Amino acid sequence: MKTFNYSTRSTRPDFQGDFLDMMLQATNKPNLISFAGGLPNPISFPTQEMAAATQKVLDQHGTIAMQYSIPEGYLPLRQFIAHQYLKQGIDISANDIIITNGSQQALDILSAVLIDEGDKILIEKPSYLAALQVFHLYNPKINSVTLNHHGIDLQELTAYLEQKPKFFYAIPTFQNPTGLTYDNETRIALANLLKKTNTIFIEDNPYGDLRFNDETFLPIYPLLKDQTILLGTFSKTVSPGMRIGWIACSNSYLKQKLLAYKQIVDLHTNIFGQMVLHQYLCDNSLEQHLEKIKKLYKEQAEQMITSIQKYFPAEVKHTIPQGGMFLWVTLPQKLTAVALANEAIKHDIAIAAGDPFYEEERNVSTLRLNYTNCDLKTIDQGIKILGQIIKNLLAS
Amino acid sequence: MKTFNYSTRSTRPDFQGDFLDMMLQATNKPNLISFAGGLPNPISFPTQEMAAATQKVLDQHGTIAMQYSIPEGYLPLRQFIAHQYLKQGIDISANDIIITNGSQQALDILSAVLIDEGDKILIEKPSYLAALQVFHLYNPKINSVTLNHHGIDLQELTAYLEQKPKFFYAIPTFQNPTGLTYDNETRIALANLLKKTNTIFIEDNPYGDLRFNDETFLPIYPLLKDQTILLGTFSKTVSPGMRIGWIACSNSYLKQKLLAYKQIVDLHTNIFGQMVLHQYLCDNSLEQHLEKIKKLYKEQAEQMITSIQKYFPAEVKHTIPQGGMFLWVTLPQKLTAVALANEAIKHDIAIAAGDPFYEEERNVSTLRLNYTNCDLKTIDQGIKILGQIIKNLLAS
Repeated sequence: MKTFNYSTRSTRPDFQGDFLDMMLQATNKPNLISFAGGLPNPISFPTQEMAAATQKVLDQHGTIAMQYSIPEGYLPLRQFIAHQYLKQGIDISANDIIITNGSQQALDILSAVLIDEGDKILIEKPSYLAALQVFHLYNPKINSVTLNHHGIDLQELTAYLEQKPKFFYAIPTFQNPTGLTYDNETRIALANLLKKTNTIFIEDNPYGDLRFNDETFLPIYPLLKDQTILLGTFSKTVSPGMRIGWIACSNSYLKQKLLAYKQIVDLHTNIFGQMVLHQYLCDNSLEQHLEKIKKLYKEQAEQMITSIQKYFPAEVKHTIPQGGMFLWVTLPQKLTAVALANEAIKHDIAIAAGDPFYEEERNVSTLRLNYTNCDLKTIDQGIKILGQIIKNLLAS
Repeated sequence: MKTFNYSTRSTRPDFQGDFLDMMLQATNKPNLISFAGGLPNPISFPTQEMAAATQKVLDQHGTIAMQYSIPEGYLPLRQFIAHQYLKQGIDISANDIIITNGSQQALDILSAVLIDEGDKILIEKPSYLAALQVFHLYNPKINSVTLNHHGIDLQELTAYLEQKPKFFYAIPTFQNPTGLTYDNETRIALANLLKKTNTIFIEDNPYGDLRFNDETFLPIYPLLKDQTILLGTFSKTVSPGMRIGWIACSNSYLKQKLLAYKQIVDLHTNIFGQMVLHQYLCDNSLEQHLEKIKKLYKEQAEQMITSIQKYFPAEVKHTIPQGGMFLWVTLPQKLTAVALANEAIKHDIAIAAGDPFYEEERNVSTLRLNYTNCDLKTIDQGIKILGQIIKNLLAS
């Protein structure tokens, strides 16, 4: 086999990828209880509705659905998204939206258009691990603002903004990995701080629609307008397999740059899927569908919290998410999450150790638990075993 | 509106993009006869077969089709592709294949994994313009090997290989934009030259299945094996809108690098579309479907050639494609393709001037004509008008 010379980009270490590979190798077990992943619960997938939508699209617009299309994405789908924003008090035009292959591709497009090697960017601590992986492709200098129960540490944010980062990437609502949410005061303060800078605010919001109660949060977009980029996705509400996400950007120059890059890297997002999804959204109530998912996830979250409070030692702390798919656990400092993960997998339980969610910290005592992919009984059973393992490790 | 700092990558000039934008602005006309694009003929799209395949997939495997999937792509689809290769004498395993969002994304993944700024790469002269755009994102030094009626100029190739390019990107069969094909002697000579180097041969083959007669060409892969990367797509045979292409790479280390990059930039290609396409391929004969397209395109190509020979001045040269979607016209040197394109659009005819298909040459006298998207009468009518315009311009 010949050996070739690879780009620097592709030979750089990938801690997140290596860590995940290591974890994945351990999880190929048949009777595994997994709290490690981030998959939507498959019982929420509207398969028959999607089949009906496909028949309709192919009957009525088959030629358009199978032909090349435009890089922006399907206009009626973008109009639907714009209308959803409007209901939240966010005035975004369909022309400001670019459909992407899931919001993962949106992160890559943004990074490519904004980051030169060595540029500063700002993220949350901890942050979404696959966002870290994308950012690393472009080799920026990354600072991380600590999350807390109000949102973020505003003093840290102030200090880091002085270093003029290109953007601040955040998931203010039901964050991955922590399940934390920025309160309204933090949102206003954040906007006021950013307004004085040229730092773009990238708000990723995959979980915002999955809230367990009626409380809504102040949208940040109206406070910052075209200094904000919004990322969204249908992966957590309808189907991740269809890979349909979006970028909303009302700064027209930036939008043109993003669009040009999108077109160069893959011409456009699959139009067949976009049109089928749009037809599904026209013929069915997304609100009703969301009610079903939220009820399901709320019960699962409540079960996990109840079980944690029953089985975990009192010195173990955890977040109480008001929506989304995850909660975040902090062990006593003497116990690392990796040690717990290694012991748990021997008992057929998978958890996500916190390490890959950080830019710098290693051997941390924090971990992420996902509650959306097990039934209530399994959640209780798994947390019970995990509690016993924690107790044993703390005692040893 | 705030102004932000963009990456160097996104502020570099994009001659190809600017040129296309300029051309596109002119072509928003209702009664346009377009020989400029590269769209498959929509009458070839199997819309009802695709609807039936979707119903079957969602009935039988709906949960898998809507859930997250693996970056490699759907295994049965990769097995289908591997089997197609085997029929051509190319022994590629399904494990060597990565499904991408069309082969455009394959070009981006390859460039990202292989090119550092300033690295040398080699392309054909002229080459596929959207490949040039992708390569430019990574700022390599690009050399171009002249195409001729045997394939490529082997002396030029020899000289350029001494500069140790990272890869040679070529479309040896029914090339875009020229419609030229490498003969078997050129294929063997090319493989022998490359074998002595560490230059990767990237063979893009979107049109190989669209051949107008029974003549097949020697596959290059068996001569170069894991020094070759094959790119393929269903865009020209089934549907471009579904955005399903692939990379075949039997060099396992390189394949791992490509796969890791694919996962980071968008997790995976839409699995819904992959499974529907695979079901379509299982329940229908791709060969029969191809026969229909080939018959259609052959008649269209023959009509265009007949009309050219009837209406164009004798000093205008053109290729005679044995398959694919394009032919290449060379005007007398005193007439530029841009001058012709500008005059033609006034008469509601769009052509693709050759300029954006070259890395360096400008104000060229070559142009691309697509014959797959007009009926026979329109082709004759458009070529007749174009012939008159050429005569007028040459006389003036």
